[in-house]
Amino acid sequence: MKRSRATTAGELGELRLIEQIRRGVKAPQHRARAGAAGLVTLGIGDDCAILQPPAGHELLVTTDFSLEGRHFRRDWHTPESIGHRTLARGLSDLAAMGARPMAAFLSLALPAATPVRFVASFMEGFGRLADSAKVTLAGGDTAQSPAGQILADVVLVGSAPAGTALRRSAARPGDRIYVTGALGGAAQELLQIQNAPGRRQALRRPGSHPQLFPEPRLAAGWALRRQRVATACMDLSDGLSSDLAKLCEASSVAAEIELAALPLHPLAAARGAEALRLALDGGEDYELLFTASPATKVPRSIGGVPITRIGQVVERAKRRPLVVQIGSDGSRRALRPGGWEHLR
Amino acid sequence: MKRSRATTAGELGELRLIEQIRRGVKAPQHRARAGAAGLVTLGIGDDCAILQPPAGHELLVTTDFSLEGRHFRRDWHTPESIGHRTLARGLSDLAAMGARPMAAFLSLALPAATPVRFVASFMEGFGRLADSAKVTLAGGDTAQSPAGQILADVVLVGSAPAGTALRRSAARPGDRIYVTGALGGAAQELLQIQNAPGRRQALRRPGSHPQLFPEPRLAAGWALRRQRVATACMDLSDGLSSDLAKLCEASSVAAEIELAALPLHPLAAARGAEALRLALDGGEDYELLFTASPATKVPRSIGGVPITRIGQVVERAKRRPLVVQIGSDGSRRALRPGGWEHLR
Repeated sequence: MKRSRATTAGELGELRLIEQIRRGVKAPQHRARAGAAGLVTLGIGDDCAILQPPAGHELLVTTDFSLEGRHFRRDWHTPESIGHRTLARGLSDLAAMGARPMAAFLSLALPAATPVRFVASFMEGFGRLADSAKVTLAGGDTAQSPAGQILADVVLVGSAPAGTALRRSAARPGDRIYVTGALGGAAQELLQIQNAPGRRQALRRPGSHPQLFPEPRLAAGWALRRQRVATACMDLSDGLSSDLAKLCEASSVAAEIELAALPLHPLAAARGAEALRLALDGGEDYELLFTASPATKVPRSIGGVPITRIGQVVERAKRRPLVVQIGSDGSRRALRPGGWEHLR
Repeated sequence: MKRSRATTAGELGELRLIEQIRRGVKAPQHRARAGAAGLVTLGIGDDCAILQPPAGHELLVTTDFSLEGRHFRRDWHTPESIGHRTLARGLSDLAAMGARPMAAFLSLALPAATPVRFVASFMEGFGRLADSAKVTLAGGDTAQSPAGQILADVVLVGSAPAGTALRRSAARPGDRIYVTGALGGAAQELLQIQNAPGRRQALRRPGSHPQLFPEPRLAAGWALRRQRVATACMDLSDGLSSDLAKLCEASSVAAEIELAALPLHPLAAARGAEALRLALDGGEDYELLFTASPATKVPRSIGGVPITRIGQVVERAKRRPLVVQIGSDGSRRALRPGGWEHLR
């Protein structure tokens, strides 16, 4: 394929756009890599990709939209961050079930005027995270976006030994409730970007930017599954208040959380009285929320991430709130889901 | 979940929208159906779906956008047709490789003002085709669309015995070229709808509407693979002139097609001199294009669909066109890709 002088996606055309996406993730280790998670036998270029899961493994599949104006904004997020976050959303779902990533599929619709350098930077952010998570980009779709927005949908396929994947539905009364890492950082960093959007360009380094470059907790998820620590698990994408309610619904249980125990991200902690609200409702932290039996010895950290006990699972009862928040003075109040719900 | 009086997707909210989508495809046979294609162990509701492929099988995965204004228009396509076509695009990719469908994932972004009855009719069209193809809706994502357009992305996961999937890249010089069914019908029906949009409401019955209700050639694809008829295969989504060029590129061969041999859809044939252009460049017919060795006895029909020989594969040579069209008078001209390319 010839070198192109096109400066927008529209001038580039679909076929050369696919070529550019493919280049963005064509690290040598991504060519039909055989690993613990399985093999990509055939990648981009045919009607379907072909995957070979390891014998005795189940497949885990998740899809996540990343839509401009809903999940990111070009004046808030850098192109590298948008690519990183697009992939991170899907990887975090695999982490939540303790799966190893096998293949990613990226559907990307771009306005005709999208700069080609945006696509290159998006794929740089996407590809760097793919490298570190050892996941192969095996296919996807491209289209011209019907309006002015960049639209992405990512599919992750992972694997785990049959019958071992961590589900949301297996929490039992008496279990203790834990989270990995710290909460509220992603929401606070977003507020900072909104208040000083020019600064985001400096915020390129992954690792210390919970909003721009969240780190999916893959190693922690695998360890929680392999070491049989967790009874139930999910990722914190919408915010603890919303996500814990979903875990309770799925498991037919209720929960109590102790506000003083919540691990606050330093960015959030600096907000003083606002910190708790950011940790409960902020969302996008992509930490893991899990439960463990009181008989299980839960380590202080797992997969390189600290673990904090934040509450306990209780019996569900009529006329009792699904989730109760216990203040440092012992006061008990219902915790209503306050996190992200797209269509509200 | 309580009955809702909401009339738009925005009033309904994300959680109840998911419930409505789930109801749309909750036919009994879709609950963890174990079949030749594998098992959906865990469907909608957790961070990932869990799939169990049959032992010794490979997985085939494909993703396809269906974006309002690019792939459909609400004033041209009925809601049932939009749901049907969204799923058909993915199923046709599985058919092209001879795979059996196992699970579908639907990501759907709706403007807040989308009528709830649109969603119900969309899911009716989607669910009816899912039933007939025996595919389970196992997950997806929902979001509010950032602009006024309905945005869908469908993922299909299928399976085939390891090493048997039909690829585009295996055509060899000397092979003969075939298509299933008839060409040009989808493009001509679209022209009719554009000229008389009010009539589309009468066009609800699947089967005789190549544009509104294309039929993915699953049975034909399976048979071509199982009976070892095809050397290479792909589906005709962009139009014969574009798709045959892709098959030639993938296989490093060239091709000649005989225009007089092209099976014209009755809708296209009625257009006289325009028929050939519709068959070559029209696109969206979702028929299969395949090659077979001259030593193979190719049946006249397969999986209930007629098969027509339309040309032959030849050696690729410098300064010779990739695809040559041979007229009924024996004239030879290059056939340029004239089909659908999204970003052009």
